[in-house]
Amino acid sequence: MSAYDDSNIFAKILRGEIPSTKVYEDTDTLAFMDVMPQSPGHFLVVPKAPSRNLLDAAPQTLATLFPVVQKLAHAAKEAFAADGIFVAQLNEAPAGQTVFHLHVHVIPRYDGIALKPHAGGMESAEILAAQADKIRAVLAG
Amino acid sequence: MSAYDDSNIFAKILRGEIPSTKVYEDTDTLAFMDVMPQSPGHFLVVPKAPSRNLLDAAPQTLATLFPVVQKLAHAAKEAFAADGIFVAQLNEAPAGQTVFHLHVHVIPRYDGIALKPHAGGMESAEILAAQADKIRAVLAG
Repeated sequence: MSAYDDSNIFAKILRGEIPSTKVYEDTDTLAFMDVMPQSPGHFLVVPKAPSRNLLDAAPQTLATLFPVVQKLAHAAKEAFAADGIFVAQLNEAPAGQTVFHLHVHVIPRYDGIALKPHAGGMESAEILAAQADKIRAVLAG
Repeated sequence: MSAYDDSNIFAKILRGEIPSTKVYEDTDTLAFMDVMPQSPGHFLVVPKAPSRNLLDAAPQTLATLFPVVQKLAHAAKEAFAADGIFVAQLNEAPAGQTVFHLHVHVIPRYDGIALKPHAGGMESAEILAAQADKIRAVLAG
């Protein structure tokens, strides 16, 4: 497996060099809206610790990450009145991975609405900001 | 959300009431081949603790489960010389969940080979057994 390359776009987001539409942040984790959502409300949960994907992550990174994925999946389900939640995590390019910093896709699903392709069209910044606001409002209780 | 119903097929597998093609087992976790694989080598990782899916699982269950998913994803990548690994976890029927005991799909990906649909055709018991053997051989080192 290749080494981690910190010039990837999520590393730049984590360093604050490029903007993102933040959903959640804690000591170990950042979540932000996917700019090319497969479904309304699609966001990414990213550990701050560097790894290319699940295969080279520290096990403790995963143990910390997935309870946060759960908390945010709950919040998204409520925020968007979603009918289900699809959690997807892609490892290496032949599996569809396009950014080589570990990330978990949290994708709200709605009855009778098909997913768009992975990394398809861009969503507007205004819509993403409104969606992130909804999730943050649920998290704030 | 509905309550957990222990008549689901994975609960029966965990109780030993129906067979499965086992890949791995420890105190908290069982992994077995998916009988309707989306790709050669597709298996499921299942916590023994009861929950319908990620949404109602104990956070500790997730913290224990995903490092095991990682270990088994590594083993599968080596066993099948896979080019990537797709990890998928479906919550509620509109997200494609068909069995209501939490499970994580570990799906080897191969360059240029598309996934089959979720819960499509049945694979033969002989092929599944041979694939499970390959993963167990890697795990046995």
